[in-house]
Amino acid sequence: MISNKYGVFIAVTGLLLGLSACQSNPGKTVYESSPQTRPEMNVSDSGVHSFTLGNGMKVLVKPDHRSPVAVSQVWYKVGGSYEYAGVTGVSHALEHMMFKGTEKLKPGEFSEIIAANGGSENAFTGKDYTAYFQRIASDRLELCLENEADRMRNLQLTEAEFKKEIEVIKEERRSRTDDSPTSLTYERFNAAAFINSSYQQPIIGWMEDLDSMQLKDLSSWYQTWYAPNNATLVVAGDVDPLQVYQWAKKYFGPLTPSKIEPPKPRREVEQMGERRIIVKVPAKVPYLLMGYKVPVLNTAKNENDIYALEVLAGVLDGGNSSRLSQQLVRGSEVASSVSAGYDLYARQQSLFLFDGTPRDGHSVKELETAIKKQIKIIQNKAPSKKELDRVKAQVMAASVYEKDSVFYQAMQLGTLETVGLGWQKKDEYLQKVQQVTAEQVRLVAKKYLINDGLTVAVLEPQPINAAKRKASATTGGRHGR
Amino acid sequence: MISNKYGVFIAVTGLLLGLSACQSNPGKTVYESSPQTRPEMNVSDSGVHSFTLGNGMKVLVKPDHRSPVAVSQVWYKVGGSYEYAGVTGVSHALEHMMFKGTEKLKPGEFSEIIAANGGSENAFTGKDYTAYFQRIASDRLELCLENEADRMRNLQLTEAEFKKEIEVIKEERRSRTDDSPTSLTYERFNAAAFINSSYQQPIIGWMEDLDSMQLKDLSSWYQTWYAPNNATLVVAGDVDPLQVYQWAKKYFGPLTPSKIEPPKPRREVEQMGERRIIVKVPAKVPYLLMGYKVPVLNTAKNENDIYALEVLAGVLDGGNSSRLSQQLVRGSEVASSVSAGYDLYARQQSLFLFDGTPRDGHSVKELETAIKKQIKIIQNKAPSKKELDRVKAQVMAASVYEKDSVFYQAMQLGTLETVGLGWQKKDEYLQKVQQVTAEQVRLVAKKYLINDGLTVAVLEPQPINAAKRKASATTGGRHGR
Repeated sequence: MISNKYGVFIAVTGLLLGLSACQSNPGKTVYESSPQTRPEMNVSDSGVHSFTLGNGMKVLVKPDHRSPVAVSQVWYKVGGSYEYAGVTGVSHALEHMMFKGTEKLKPGEFSEIIAANGGSENAFTGKDYTAYFQRIASDRLELCLENEADRMRNLQLTEAEFKKEIEVIKEERRSRTDDSPTSLTYERFNAAAFINSSYQQPIIGWMEDLDSMQLKDLSSWYQTWYAPNNATLVVAGDVDPLQVYQWAKKYFGPLTPSKIEPPKPRREVEQMGERRIIVKVPAKVPYLLMGYKVPVLNTAKNENDIYALEVLAGVLDGGNSSRLSQQLVRGSEVASSVSAGYDLYARQQSLFLFDGTPRDGHSVKELETAIKKQIKIIQNKAPSKKELDRVKAQVMAASVYEKDSVFYQAMQLGTLETVGLGWQKKDEYLQKVQQVTAEQVRLVAKKYLINDGLTVAVLEPQPINAAKRKASATTGGRHGR
Repeated sequence: MISNKYGVFIAVTGLLLGLSACQSNPGKTVYESSPQTRPEMNVSDSGVHSFTLGNGMKVLVKPDHRSPVAVSQVWYKVGGSYEYAGVTGVSHALEHMMFKGTEKLKPGEFSEIIAANGGSENAFTGKDYTAYFQRIASDRLELCLENEADRMRNLQLTEAEFKKEIEVIKEERRSRTDDSPTSLTYERFNAAAFINSSYQQPIIGWMEDLDSMQLKDLSSWYQTWYAPNNATLVVAGDVDPLQVYQWAKKYFGPLTPSKIEPPKPRREVEQMGERRIIVKVPAKVPYLLMGYKVPVLNTAKNENDIYALEVLAGVLDGGNSSRLSQQLVRGSEVASSVSAGYDLYARQQSLFLFDGTPRDGHSVKELETAIKKQIKIIQNKAPSKKELDRVKAQVMAASVYEKDSVFYQAMQLGTLETVGLGWQKKDEYLQKVQQVTAEQVRLVAKKYLINDGLTVAVLEPQPINAAKRKASATTGGRHGR
């Protein structure tokens, strides 16, 4: 699967490629408090407690008592894909500024409080969401909710803090995108693959837009999107759902909702033929990116196609026994690395991606030909039962492993809720994947992996002028900040 | 030069490709009224009277008494390139709605008044401007100013009119873009050539955006941009500048200015390698578009480069004796048509364009190779004195011919003022073009017509399914409306 090689912004969504949901909890959740005190609370078979506050804010709680730790995440329905040209990067910039204090707290004080209580915290901005999280001893959870509620409505955006922070953000862009040949290629690739969809633009924002960004762009963004009725609180870990409910009511309940206008749809225009771009940047190795337009759950006419595409990604690239790895890396040795990936949970139409680096002595063209040959093979002949069983077993295994991470469980709930699918979709995943047939996999390969919907980007390495290279070792900084 | 083949939106800017300005008027304009009554009025050597109203509105008057006709044009600094994704096409849609009545006038009544007075009127939307004009007997000019002032601030935007008009606009898009293979190719070509510049998006708007357009998008656009301090009135023809000044003061003077925020810069990111797209649409003949990133006057570090590019366009394509025509159409017969074009007056960085259709029996690839060969020739050897003299003579001739049209004279003033160059730039044109040397032409060809800044779009004709073709004979409609 496509890993987090594209830097932090993609890293986050990258986690979701091949996302598998929790297995249904065996048996009903044991109520931790008497049922009659929480009439608005629903409990799913998978143990997710959900309720909606009077102001429209959703709260999801997933108890997990294996260790005395809680994760709190506040998800906002806003991110890179909500932006329009000229202010790209504003969601991410605002995410940075959310740590700069409120009427009650000084800049950085929220983070200090969490650290002083032995917790860790951060935030991330994706195409379809912005989220803030803390991981903390479960008896300190209240602190998180209190202060998240505070900065949802009382953020202090000052010119002085903004002036400093925008430079940090630009440095982040330089080190993670402009100085990273593959990230830069990926950015240009997206800009070619999408025309009017907002997936065309980078989450970090074009440097031009960062250069012209003003404090008022951020305050307008904050006013527009940061409201309880545009947010979801997800709490997972060693918690009592009723207690979380009471705290949520206490801290988030009094916040007034906003009138939220949904963003313009910006459904991508139909692609009418192949697109190719060359990206010449100083680099040592070439790099190939190929993307085919595909539907996702949110845009699907036929949900079966989506799960079949998910399994297709697993057949082509799900570990060392997958086809791309076997045939291209170890077999013909044309690639030093090659991957395929698909994010079925994107908010808008997306891409079925291939990327890779040719091995020394082989060209990008050869790698592309080899990938296309693998596509043709699966278009003509359905995968074997053995292959399909492997993919399905991997999905089952992943769903067990992931339970080790309360953070990841919360992340799945937050993502699904925030992209508009509803967190319940998580419970369908395993079953739907198990139902996919070999012939369905062949048919979606034939239907969607076609040249008329293909975009190709080729990184052509240019000589590296050592003197001109920025020393990027100094940038560092926190993840997603 | 690239003609108006791209439909009305490009047609308007198309006029400006190879635009040449009026020759300086020999001698000072004779004052038509006593100078002491117009202290704010300036008169240029070329006979343009200019003044600014107290509310910031600019007024330009170019008297021309050859016939008793006047042209009135109101130019707004807003157009397709001011828009952001999701609301593309809103400037043009608003232009349509500007004919739908005010507090004082019923829908269509302004047009009826002009027609009843023997005049004609219309409007056009470009990338960088929206303009409204009337051509009328000069003794009826006051009518135009009175009613233009009225709709600048008092437009009535009703849901009922919008519902009807948006369908007209969509039909316009279908007939002029979706049913026109070359227009469609040009639209996709721009979307590939530009990434974050607003020249990426079509003036008519993506159909998706027209589908989701709401009345409030238009009223917000109207509130934001339609204000006296964002407009220029240009009057040309058989008029007395002082009288125009008095009327302008009377009708536009009382309008309150708005706080106008300039649009975000959206300077295009540097292109790092060639881009190619294929556009497969039902069509009979293939079509090639090639565009090289070039600066324009507004973005130029060196103005000489801009005028040299202008002359380069003339050498390659300025009538039957130009190189492309001589070598590719009549010489090798590889092309049935081929053109080059450049718009030095664009508001933002633009393209040096080539387009053409291969002759039967020749491929698009051959045409591209032939064009590139011509580029190489001029990159290696400066044009002859004879060629340069031809281009310069053509420019001189054009500047004489164009004086025949008061409309065109007004259009030049309005364009230059509205894209931010200032109308005075018009007076420099002839002299600057005459100063261009053959070596400068060679050098700009070498500097800018390079593969790393090239975008190529190829229309690959698909079989035309007669049954599916829309009958577009029924669309008709007024130019630019």
